[in-house]
Amino acid sequence: MSQQPDSNAVKHYLLTLQETIAQRLGAVDGEATFITDAWDRPEGGGGISRVLTDGAVFEKGGVNFSHVMGDTMPPSATAHRPHLAGAPWQAMGVSLVIHPHNPMVPTSHANVRFFIATPKDAEPVYWFGGGYDLTPYYGFDEDCVHWHQTARNACQPFGDEVYPRFKHWCDEYFYLKHRNEPRGIGGLFFDDHNTGDFGRDFGLMQAVGSSYIEAYEPIVQRRKHLPYTDQQRDFQLYRRGRYVEFNLVYDRGTLFGLQSGGRTESILMSLPPLVRWDYNRSAAPGSEESRLTEYFLTDRDWLELNHEQ
Amino acid sequence: MSQQPDSNAVKHYLLTLQETIAQRLGAVDGEATFITDAWDRPEGGGGISRVLTDGAVFEKGGVNFSHVMGDTMPPSATAHRPHLAGAPWQAMGVSLVIHPHNPMVPTSHANVRFFIATPKDAEPVYWFGGGYDLTPYYGFDEDCVHWHQTARNACQPFGDEVYPRFKHWCDEYFYLKHRNEPRGIGGLFFDDHNTGDFGRDFGLMQAVGSSYIEAYEPIVQRRKHLPYTDQQRDFQLYRRGRYVEFNLVYDRGTLFGLQSGGRTESILMSLPPLVRWDYNRSAAPGSEESRLTEYFLTDRDWLELNHEQ
Repeated sequence: MSQQPDSNAVKHYLLTLQETIAQRLGAVDGEATFITDAWDRPEGGGGISRVLTDGAVFEKGGVNFSHVMGDTMPPSATAHRPHLAGAPWQAMGVSLVIHPHNPMVPTSHANVRFFIATPKDAEPVYWFGGGYDLTPYYGFDEDCVHWHQTARNACQPFGDEVYPRFKHWCDEYFYLKHRNEPRGIGGLFFDDHNTGDFGRDFGLMQAVGSSYIEAYEPIVQRRKHLPYTDQQRDFQLYRRGRYVEFNLVYDRGTLFGLQSGGRTESILMSLPPLVRWDYNRSAAPGSEESRLTEYFLTDRDWLELNHEQ
Repeated sequence: MSQQPDSNAVKHYLLTLQETIAQRLGAVDGEATFITDAWDRPEGGGGISRVLTDGAVFEKGGVNFSHVMGDTMPPSATAHRPHLAGAPWQAMGVSLVIHPHNPMVPTSHANVRFFIATPKDAEPVYWFGGGYDLTPYYGFDEDCVHWHQTARNACQPFGDEVYPRFKHWCDEYFYLKHRNEPRGIGGLFFDDHNTGDFGRDFGLMQAVGSSYIEAYEPIVQRRKHLPYTDQQRDFQLYRRGRYVEFNLVYDRGTLFGLQSGGRTESILMSLPPLVRWDYNRSAAPGSEESRLTEYFLTDRDWLELNHEQ
């Protein structure tokens, strides 16, 4: 593959990824149909939202593609890169969040993104970002191990250090400081990725993007028919509050999107369909609910666990 | 009253206000009991949270008192007031949010607060802040007029210009930019209030604090027995999402509290008990639901309306 950044190739990959993931999720749900919503951004570009509600397995989910662009980089974006001031730019990505009905099935999130600026008198500047993370309500060791094993396998061709670095980054990023709690059991997160080898960098983004569904689908298959009680459903709604708190208080993509006049309905598609907040709720010691925070929501090395088994 | 700032008098007023409001809310509910939760702040001070859940009328509500203090002003708070650097300080206030079951009864919020710094070699510096605002799901003109009339009456002794100024400030503050929508029908908001006359400034805070329950209680009495449908309840849960979005994305008190290591459970007591988010939901033209945003959630002069009637 050419070393010259190829936006069209990235766009083609992202559109194919959106389609593939939507089809696979539709198949594992069995009843879900996606509504497709195309939207335009007045300043340039737009997106395609694929939204699922009230499936058999998935209560709400969305797989969004967006491709936005501008003639000149905004000053706020070039403070640390003055040579890009005034350059034309494009940003594109696929972003998804899936909220299942059954509290035994974890919520998952994935995102891959590409940015490129093309100054007149200099080489183009690009970077990739992305990752995926899992948020269980009732945890299962084998799900966490499978999730992280799939993530590590995807990163392996790009070097031994990639998975531990991106896992650590994910643990740091998806953290609710005011709760002193991670959002979930982590996965991968990376940003501003540019080694100078476009083909290799694009390959890494593809490896991450394409492995998401391999990481998530077997977990959904294993858990979607498990029985659950009203109390367990109630606990799920309560824990979904943490998801809302993270996305609205900390998530850079969400806040940047809302502040920069992004499409609100596509950005906030990540919020759960039904959520509860209870004052000072705490789980009984030794319960499955307290095990979630005490055992699963830690920065555990899940592949070390696999080794020990 | 002496012109010398009197923190003890303010504290006494705030504790009495908390008690009065909790009693009046308890009486209008009929079944609600408040749980009282006292907490300490490791760095100094603490608070008393009075929390109500699953009353006959109120689904969730809390009336919080807090009084926090420190030996030296943090540098971030003294950037614009360098003479306060290193001064001992105190902040105290009462803050409340009430979420009723019945979508015909609006949600209400009120807050009054006092800040004082006492530098060694200079006069103490103080300011007051506060206000109240109303968030209906199904609107009624007479409720909006009563709410604003009570607010205006409270401000009237302090000058004709006070109510319009605080109303405008409220409309500006409780605004969701990403929705292009106000949070509710407004009321009063003020901050950094210091005319140099402590007695008068404290009097204004008391007038605002004490009129809240006179503004809210008659509205609850009028609406609490109105029948409502499952669809109307569903709309209320959906609209509560806007409340969450405002509090987590914009509210300075919430964000400052979470970032500065405040007591999370007391701060997030403002969040509704049950909330839903639906993708791209819109109300039918001409429906009561579309009337909420098109007629009620505007920066209307409700007292002008009263005049016309």
